Amino acid sequence: MANILVLHGPNLNLLGEREPEIYGSLSLAEIDRRITSIGAKTGFTIRTYQSNSEGALIDALHESRQWANGIIFNPGGYTHTSVALHDAILAIKLPVVEVHLSNPQARENFRQRSLITPVCIGTISGFGWKSYELAIYGLQWYINNKHE
Amino acid sequence: MANILVLHGPNLNLLGEREPEIYGSLSLAEIDRRITSIGAKTGFTIRTYQSNSEGALIDALHESRQWANGIIFNPGGYTHTSVALHDAILAIKLPVVEVHLSNPQARENFRQRSLITPVCIGTISGFGWKSYELAIYGLQWYINNKHE
Amino acid sequence: MANILVLHGPNLNLLGEREPEIYGSLSLAEIDRRITSIGAKTGFTIRTYQSNSEGALIDALHESRQWANGIIFNPGGYTHTSVALHDAILAIKLPVVEVHLSNPQARENFRQRSLITPVCIGTISGFGWKSYELAIYGLQWYINNKHE
Amino acid sequence: MANILVLHGPNLNLLGEREPEIYGSLSLAEIDRRITSIGAKTGFTIRTYQSNSEGALIDALHESRQWANGIIFNPGGYTHTSVALHDAILAIKLPVVEVHLSNPQARENFRQRSLITPVCIGTISGFGWKSYELAIYGLQWYINNKHE
Amino acid sequence: MANILVLHGPNLNLLGEREPEIYGSLSLAEIDRRITSIGAKTGFTIRTYQSNSEGALIDALHESRQWANGIIFNPGGYTHTSVALHDAILAIKLPVVEVHLSNPQARENFRQRSLITPVCIGTISGFGWKSYELAIYGLQWYINNKHE
Amino acid sequence: MANILVLHGPNLNLLGEREPEIYGSLSLAEIDRRITSIGAKTGFTIRTYQSNSEGALIDALHESRQWANGIIFNPGGYTHTSVALHDAILAIKLPVVEVHLSNPQARENFRQRSLITPVCIGTISGFGWKSYELAIYGLQWYINNKHE
Amino acid sequence: MANILVLHGPNLNLLGEREPEIYGSLSLAEIDRRITSIGAKTGFTIRTYQSNSEGALIDALHESRQWANGIIFNPGGYTHTSVALHDAILAIKLPVVEVHLSNPQARENFRQRSLITPVCIGTISGFGWKSYELAIYGLQWYINNKHE
Amino acid sequence: MANILVLHGPNLNLLGEREPEIYGSLSLAEIDRRITSIGAKTGFTIRTYQSNSEGALIDALHESRQWANGIIFNPGGYTHTSVALHDAILAIKLPVVEVHLSNPQARENFRQRSLITPVCIGTISGFGWKSYELAIYGLQWYINNKHE
Amino acid sequence: MANILVLHGPNLNLLGEREPEIYGSLSLAEIDRRITSIGAKTGFTIRTYQSNSEGALIDALHESRQWANGIIFNPGGYTHTSVALHDAILAIKLPVVEVHLSNPQARENFRQRSLITPVCIGTISGFGWKSYELAIYGLQWYINNKHE
Amino acid sequence: MANILVLHGPNLNLLGEREPEIYGSLSLAEIDRRITSIGAKTGFTIRTYQSNSEGALIDALHESRQWANGIIFNPGGYTHTSVALHDAILAIKLPVVEVHLSNPQARENFRQRSLITPVCIGTISGFGWKSYELAIYGLQWYINNKHE
Amino acid sequence: MANILVLHGPNLNLLGEREPEIYGSLSLAEIDRRITSIGAKTGFTIRTYQSNSEGALIDALHESRQWANGIIFNPGGYTHTSVALHDAILAIKLPVVEVHLSNPQARENFRQRSLITPVCIGTISGFGWKSYELAIYGLQWYINNKHE
Amino acid sequence: MANILVLHGPNLNLLGEREPEIYGSLSLAEIDRRITSIGAKTGFTIRTYQSNSEGALIDALHESRQWANGIIFNPGGYTHTSVALHDAILAIKLPVVEVHLSNPQARENFRQRSLITPVCIGTISGFGWKSYELAIYGLQWYINNKHE
Repeated sequence: MANILVLHGPNLNLLGEREPEIYGSLSLAEIDRRITSIGAKTGFTIRTYQSNSEGALIDALHESRQWANGIIFNPGGYTHTSVALHDAILAIKLPVVEVHLSNPQARENFRQRSLITPVCIGTISGFGWKSYELAIYGLQWYINNKHE
Repeated sequence: MANILVLHGPNLNLLGEREPEIYGSLSLAEIDRRITSIGAKTGFTIRTYQSNSEGALIDALHESRQWANGIIFNPGGYTHTSVALHDAILAIKLPVVEVHLSNPQARENFRQRSLITPVCIGTISGFGWKSYELAIYGLQWYINNKHE
Repeated sequence: MANILVLHGPNLNLLGEREPEIYGSLSLAEIDRRITSIGAKTGFTIRTYQSNSEGALIDALHESRQWANGIIFNPGGYTHTSVALHDAILAIKLPVVEVHLSNPQARENFRQRSLITPVCIGTISGFGWKSYELAIYGLQWYINNKHE
Repeated sequence: MANILVLHGPNLNLLGEREPEIYGSLSLAEIDRRITSIGAKTGFTIRTYQSNSEGALIDALHESRQWANGIIFNPGGYTHTSVALHDAILAIKLPVVEVHLSNPQARENFRQRSLITPVCIGTISGFGWKSYELAIYGLQWYINNKHE
Repeated sequence: MANILVLHGPNLNLLGEREPEIYGSLSLAEIDRRITSIGAKTGFTIRTYQSNSEGALIDALHESRQWANGIIFNPGGYTHTSVALHDAILAIKLPVVEVHLSNPQARENFRQRSLITPVCIGTISGFGWKSYELAIYGLQWYINNKHE
Repeated sequence: MANILVLHGPNLNLLGEREPEIYGSLSLAEIDRRITSIGAKTGFTIRTYQSNSEGALIDALHESRQWANGIIFNPGGYTHTSVALHDAILAIKLPVVEVHLSNPQARENFRQRSLITPVCIGTISGFGWKSYELAIYGLQWYINNKHE
Repeated sequence: MANILVLHGPNLNLLGEREPEIYGSLSLAEIDRRITSIGAKTGFTIRTYQSNSEGALIDALHESRQWANGIIFNPGGYTHTSVALHDAILAIKLPVVEVHLSNPQARENFRQRSLITPVCIGTISGFGWKSYELAIYGLQWYINNKHE
Repeated sequence: MANILVLHGPNLNLLGEREPEIYGSLSLAEIDRRITSIGAKTGFTIRTYQSNSEGALIDALHESRQWANGIIFNPGGYTHTSVALHDAILAIKLPVVEVHLSNPQARENFRQRSLITPVCIGTISGFGWKSYELAIYGLQWYINNKHE
Repeated sequence: MANILVLHGPNLNLLGEREPEIYGSLSLAEIDRRITSIGAKTGFTIRTYQSNSEGALIDALHESRQWANGIIFNPGGYTHTSVALHDAILAIKLPVVEVHLSNPQARENFRQRSLITPVCIGTISGFGWKSYELAIYGLQWYINNKHE
Repeated sequence: MANILVLHGPNLNLLGEREPEIYGSLSLAEIDRRITSIGAKTGFTIRTYQSNSEGALIDALHESRQWANGIIFNPGGYTHTSVALHDAILAIKLPVVEVHLSNPQARENFRQRSLITPVCIGTISGFGWKSYELAIYGLQWYINNKHE
Repeated sequence: MANILVLHGPNLNLLGEREPEIYGSLSLAEIDRRITSIGAKTGFTIRTYQSNSEGALIDALHESRQWANGIIFNPGGYTHTSVALHDAILAIKLPVVEVHLSNPQARENFRQRSLITPVCIGTISGFGWKSYELAIYGLQWYINNKHE
Repeated sequence: MANILVLHGPNLNLLGEREPEIYGSLSLAEIDRRITSIGAKTGFTIRTYQSNSEGALIDALHESRQWANGIIFNPGGYTHTSVALHDAILAIKLPVVEVHLSNPQARENFRQRSLITPVCIGTISGFGWKSYELAIYGLQWYINNKHE
């Protein structure tokens, strides 16, 4: 039995409204409901949190040290600009899986560089909301493997 | 009749005090008063908001979808670093005019790149507080043109 | 009472014919007529000039020193390549407002750098022909402000 | 019922022997056995193929058009250097999921750029052999979604 | 029956005198005579024009809209520096074939980038004056193909 | 009477199927038939060869030294990445004409650099299958010129 | 007698827990206690503040104008990405000393550039918590020197 | 006895008016008078020409082949942007001395690169109008040396 | 007694024919004969292999694990482009000496970067076929030293 | 009780004379006197040495291994260009503190990169001669800490 | 009456022997004799000094403050690499003219950047030993002008 | 019978003491003894010289022209920064072999570029002190070959 924080970065609160042809038509609430349900089946207690603020995301990463065994993180636009989130992941020493709904490398130049990827155990991108489900399975495998 | 959000980014709360030879001697409160009055004459209801926080600026952009028909945005120092604000403007699908008091391209190298300009309908920079007034006229033209 | 040169750079003579979905359907003659009329209401005598030649544009900037109080300049494709126009603006010591019909920063990489912006008092871009009208108001404010 | 090609790029034939602390201790044959078994449970017929030759990998992508509904591809070192594989994926018009055992973005500079990612529907990296299993689920979701 | 403008950029008036071991020993007048004769056999009426001035080349492109069905253009040194010529080709909406006598990519670094190539239907370089003849055949194919 | 090798690089075997709106609807077999026929009229014996393998293309260049007088080469995606093909062309000391169906310079950044162009006598790109025909005429001119 | 703000940026609240072999084993509370005590001996009244939020750090810099004579600032990960903090330091016109516990220049490439250093009077890095003590002496010297 | 063309590029017609603290207070007419007089003493017949047009400067270089033995050229802003002038100097095969009144390398980044220097026999910069006089002596030495 | 693979990359099969003034006039067969003979005197059993195919070279490196104690590798043009060969050398964990006949650093820019050097124990370049002999002595020293 | 070498790089012998508004008005002799006196109070025996020669500075670093426990080094202009000094610090295995009188990061681009910082335990810059005093305290802390 | 130091940088002691087709056939002693004689006629007392050591050149610049009114400096290979010489020129506050025998900008990439030019009053390059004579005239003009 | 200068650059005097796990445990004196002895067997009279000073190394290269037939040079940290040493090797016209104990290309970015390699006949790196022995054999081959 393990606890997972699913952390959503900036603009993800608009999911379902924002460019549905790219990001899909599910709202964030619906995605969170699905994630929580899949987590439960997998034996994970999942808490979800969204913020548009870099500082609040860092706070959430810090606080998760008290109770979480792993983190699934969609850093949104901060993926490409935040050294501070990079440092926060380093600092908390929990396994973090990076998730993206679409494929940032197929977009503008300023989305080519990820400051988050180098400190994550793995990355899953391009499968819409399903990326989160795959991340749960990946994190489950990582946590179990580590205990073997 | 249309509603406009005038959004001021980081350090603009210090206007009037901060390097007046560059940014002018009017306080932000005085500028907001003038903008609101010009807006009223032009047939716009204007709300103004300032924050030093990237996250709070994203929140304000999101919330404006409920009531605004357009946005005038001075992103200050976030102009050059915020992919998240770029994404927020894309997400809300409202016309945004980028405004600067001075001319950032005439300054340091790290002010050459704007992440905000590519998602705005237009940019006005260099006319001190008057940049906001010109932006109101530009936005008025854009909104009326769009309905033709 | 002040005199203004409105200077149009390369390819602007084709306005109305060239990609109207980007640049609008007004001809340059019609735009010049509107600018002149707005100038008159604002108390400006406006002369307009278009050339496809970098040298002729430099000549026009030089000659304007004899009679103009300010310049509105759409440098077109020379925006990104002309050090000589940069130097000409420096040399004539008149206030110059840079104008673009569309938003060059939202286009190809080679349009990211402006050699003209750093020597202008301000920039207005993205409002189609209306950019010129806004530039008149901006220049009016600058000239009056300077005499305060 | 769908057919999947699992394509392994250069040096993956050495799995289990090559730096097991990074790439895991399973041999490629064992991984292929697991993938095929998981595929069968998911309703996929899976063929696997490994080659160290860029040309042979292109050939395999071409041939898969005759029978496959999707591809899972670990391009290994060609990820960063092969325009020809990029073009092959574009040409065959099948959904391709990019897979990596480890996280290339956490390694040398010359591994930062992926020429393959922009033409794939998604990327999964960092979960060892489990990356392939997650890719099966992702591809399953994509294929089913597309038929909805 | 179609009309073609053959446009020669800067320094091409010196052909035959200028580095004949690179550019060949034919004068521009002789090349123009050959081109016109080949054009006539192919069913093209050909006008030729040379200028050292970027502005005059833009003017010539603009004027050709009145009568030409296609353009063969050797932009010489402006190949690498002229955004204004790039824009002019975009604006006139005629098919343009880029021609070079020698192979600019085999020379200095500052000749690597072409601003003209991306807006041309094709490029022919390295065959001396014969490049123009090949361009006539290529343009003929393009124009006929378009009408099929 | 001369012998010509027409060498097709990676993915060209899919011609007619692969993005016909860009590359045309003729199959490679049909193009080879046309090229051979045109060659015969021009007095050339033409052999054609296609491979997706960089090594096999190098082998083909080497072997052509035994019988060919010139080469027409469409290097496809290897254009931008292969130093080894660059060296092979240098080594065989035969005239090579580089051919592209479309215009690579109008596409992604990673297609801007050609490692093949600097060692070719000339380049023809953008005329679909017709590029090969023009290359035959260009090579004919080059070979005859050399013997004059 | 002077007032000093000691401002700690993102992730510094985790000091003592986060990679103690790099950052030392003292908690932030203990460091703040030592700094305050050293300040008192030196004749400084010291207030300390930590936040993970860029906006809150800007707010703190602004508010310090009311009472502080100088600032000691460890901007953490924002060192390398925040133009807004750069602007805030410029705006408040107080002497700021930049402090780092370790030596960022000895780490990843993205830590090479500091946006904060150019607007500070000096920088002290690499001495663990002792960096703050040295900064107090440096600021003391600067303030006294200024009044001489 | 030799003939020299002294060629002045863009904005040099404003000499004496334009930033005299940088460029000196002599008018171009006065400088031309001095140059001609010095030339006469040195045994040179000097013609001077100024244009703001890149094309006209190329024309002047071409025409000088008929009568000149050497050229003194101040390319002004075209120094940094004109491949066409570079090519013109190559083409005319006359010795050219590059001259600047001030020191462009001590100014903006976009003045660091000279496209003209690599095709000149020498460069003289920084001595105001005296740079032209030194260029006459340098060219005299070069021409005499060549005939030795 | 040790076994050595001498691996020759692309275009080296043409040695003796290809630019003998650079690469020398010995054929590869003759070089292989000399290498084998020198190896025998040194106590090494030497097998040699040449291929133009990147994949075949990777295969050869893999297979050598079964019998070789060290490798001498001239990667030719793949030196500068092959991440896959870099990975293969890492994977096989045998000492590899990089050899070049000439000095690639003295040639084009695209030969400056070696992807192979960082995973080799040493490099010998510039001594023609003698580079291989020196590599044998170097590898002998390395192997013996390792066993000390 | 410990021994410290204070090493001054190029141009520091001119202190007091050279741009006193930047570097202060104290001579190097006076600074050395102060440093020695502060060192004595702190329990350090301090020797000082200045040279304009990179080689002499390397020699001094080498010789200090015989008697010093730590080094305070102001590398002046060699900060940005000397790999050899970088290597010398690595070689001697003594703790080195980098010192600058002013803040090099606030100056020209070529002063942004430090080759010395990555091999020092810490850096102190911007406090004029006081930087040396702070460095003494920092080194004292480092040496004592190491012995704890 | 003024005193001038003529300072020759590395490798200039080999003049006359080293690549005479580039650098001329005069020895440094002969050049020094000519310079001194020309100086005498111009009213300058000239001392000359050559060193291959960067430090010795800095020392010579420093010492010249005692007696010289200006400096003529050929920095040779240090032109492109020495921040310390840049700083030395800034420090001594004497007018320095940069001299080169040939034209470094026409050579390798690593000779494009000059660290010396931005701190000199002017540059003369390309006229062989005559560059020194022209520098004397330039410096004479500068010194006299300054006293006007 | 030939004379060889073996020249050791900066920090090599510390060999045996400096990071022996990288550079080996032999002192420079011992290496020089071995080199001299091997040289004698090979028919070479060898002189060795070490200096930490760039200028002294240039002097040594110059002086060797009087008696040496070839040079073996380990330029240490000057490899990456010294244009002056590059020029010195060009000037003396003797064959120079570059030697490194370890493999600089496998280390930091600033060691990637060698300014020395392009002017050497060959490079040997990575074999510890044995690199010198191999260089002797390589130079022997070069000198004998040249006389054939």
